[in-house]
Amino acid sequence: MPRENDFKVKLAQYRELVLPTIAAATPAREPRRHLYDLIGGYLSRVGKGLRPALCIATCRAFGGRDEDVLKSAAALELLHNAFLVHDDIEDESDFRRNEPTLHKQHGVALAVNVGDAMNALSLRLVKDNLPVLGGARTWGVLQEFDHMILETLEGQALELGWVRENNCTATEDDYLRMVLKKTCWYSFIHPCRIGALIARGEGVDLDRFNRFGFFTGAAFQIQDDVLNLVGDASRYGKEIGGDLWEGKRTLILAHLFRSIGSTDLSRVRTLLARPRQLRLPRDIAWLGDMVTTHGSIDYARDVSRQLIAAAESEFETAYGDVPDGPDKTFIRQLVHYMVTRDL
Amino acid sequence: MPRENDFKVKLAQYRELVLPTIAAATPAREPRRHLYDLIGGYLSRVGKGLRPALCIATCRAFGGRDEDVLKSAAALELLHNAFLVHDDIEDESDFRRNEPTLHKQHGVALAVNVGDAMNALSLRLVKDNLPVLGGARTWGVLQEFDHMILETLEGQALELGWVRENNCTATEDDYLRMVLKKTCWYSFIHPCRIGALIARGEGVDLDRFNRFGFFTGAAFQIQDDVLNLVGDASRYGKEIGGDLWEGKRTLILAHLFRSIGSTDLSRVRTLLARPRQLRLPRDIAWLGDMVTTHGSIDYARDVSRQLIAAAESEFETAYGDVPDGPDKTFIRQLVHYMVTRDL
Repeated sequence: MPRENDFKVKLAQYRELVLPTIAAATPAREPRRHLYDLIGGYLSRVGKGLRPALCIATCRAFGGRDEDVLKSAAALELLHNAFLVHDDIEDESDFRRNEPTLHKQHGVALAVNVGDAMNALSLRLVKDNLPVLGGARTWGVLQEFDHMILETLEGQALELGWVRENNCTATEDDYLRMVLKKTCWYSFIHPCRIGALIARGEGVDLDRFNRFGFFTGAAFQIQDDVLNLVGDASRYGKEIGGDLWEGKRTLILAHLFRSIGSTDLSRVRTLLARPRQLRLPRDIAWLGDMVTTHGSIDYARDVSRQLIAAAESEFETAYGDVPDGPDKTFIRQLVHYMVTRDL
Repeated sequence: MPRENDFKVKLAQYRELVLPTIAAATPAREPRRHLYDLIGGYLSRVGKGLRPALCIATCRAFGGRDEDVLKSAAALELLHNAFLVHDDIEDESDFRRNEPTLHKQHGVALAVNVGDAMNALSLRLVKDNLPVLGGARTWGVLQEFDHMILETLEGQALELGWVRENNCTATEDDYLRMVLKKTCWYSFIHPCRIGALIARGEGVDLDRFNRFGFFTGAAFQIQDDVLNLVGDASRYGKEIGGDLWEGKRTLILAHLFRSIGSTDLSRVRTLLARPRQLRLPRDIAWLGDMVTTHGSIDYARDVSRQLIAAAESEFETAYGDVPDGPDKTFIRQLVHYMVTRDL
């Protein structure tokens, strides 16, 4: 079986493992119609399940038990979905996982509330660890969630602030700092930290995962930004070029800002200053041409590959001292998948 | 000094007590401009501080110490503000505490994110109780927060669902059930429960506050709905008649639905079916006339007074066995204030 398929099969197995816990986290009670049914429906749009997989695999690699980690892994996935619902409102996105975004289907009001409720249900799962993990480890997991939630919201504020102020000077370093906050902590660093914490308690230095998760997460986000421009819509599940419509500051745009002449930069600035609904298809097409012509997409692909090389080296710091096995192998494959993925 | 002023002076004293803890809960770090400065600015719009006051007063009345309760009281106020920011987006409200709502000032995107961050900072405060309260009581407080957050979001879903479906058959019972969820748990019942829990640990049956908080909270919300129609805008801090513009299902509308003939009801339905921006001032004026003519506002005032009488009786169940003192007196005054307040 080719390596790529092997990885996807394993990823799906981790997802299967955590789905019952995710499903059980939504209360079977009223109000269904405008709250819990919407949550259930949204969660049934099957995502990749990267975060729970990374958390479970890390827990196992460090000698932990599935039953100890499932609630936290499910909580990560619920939190991720809570973020997605609010992010899509904030970015005015139209599609998510091949369907209209939740606020497009049910209005901004109900979608804000659904995101809030998914966030609350995620923390309920963390709290429900107590009888399984005991006070110290449950408390540790809660601390990890506390840190990752605020980091993510800070990263989101940076990104939204750039759009709001029509910032056209953000550098690649600015971008990477923003991505560390917006993506890396909650999607990569903390899933690893939480997995190891549950397996070993206080006995392991969790900071060992920070650089590994940062490099992997930045590569993931940059690949996501690339796919947003050149991916296959049906596989990617979102509108292709959506980031340009939304004016999202990606590494690709940061590269463009420093690569084009002042006349073109001024045209980019004017274009991005318009509210989304006033941007014209021909403007967006021009912007798409610019990032291609100036090599900004290829540049982003290169950076992504360099980050993966760095992540592969950091893998040794993070996992070098745990025994080889299928879970450790899966995590190594996951790093590679970050730049080969097409969805 | 008149009783009313006496109450307001005391309320302000409780507020002063908790303000430093609230201020310290906002991290002094980046990103300021699009996140933490917005939180600081919003929190400086001084609210009444009912929830922390009720929590602190209950803790003291049950023999607890200020230093034990301040973080939880501050967390209640932060959570309240998080709810307000999201509620105003959901209801498309224009004014809050005499200023434009946060999303009117800074856009929906940043406001959704700010609300999320205030919610996270609130839970961080609860978590930071650990060194002060120890595991068992901190855990108890966390459970209380978990319950009140989900109840509130469920109530919000009910209310938003009615608006979205243009429900014109909601009964007074439906309304009271919704208000129990949307308002009473987080604004009245849980502040009392948390105060007593912190003072006494497991040694007190917290359900003793449930009926007291429900009656008080329902009276509070109905008075709020009345003030929204007949209050003084500068004191109330919101647009007068805003609820009619938003189509919010209040006890006043529930009374109107059952009091008017089918022709007028049909006109109400048509009017409320229009999106807010397509409602005309003359339509809203007509609706305002209808609720006056049919005695719906007076009816709501009556119900509010009846609820206060019930709350005064429940006060004995909730606080009858604690010694008399200034905090117990304050809580009794607070009940009375629910129907006399003009802001």
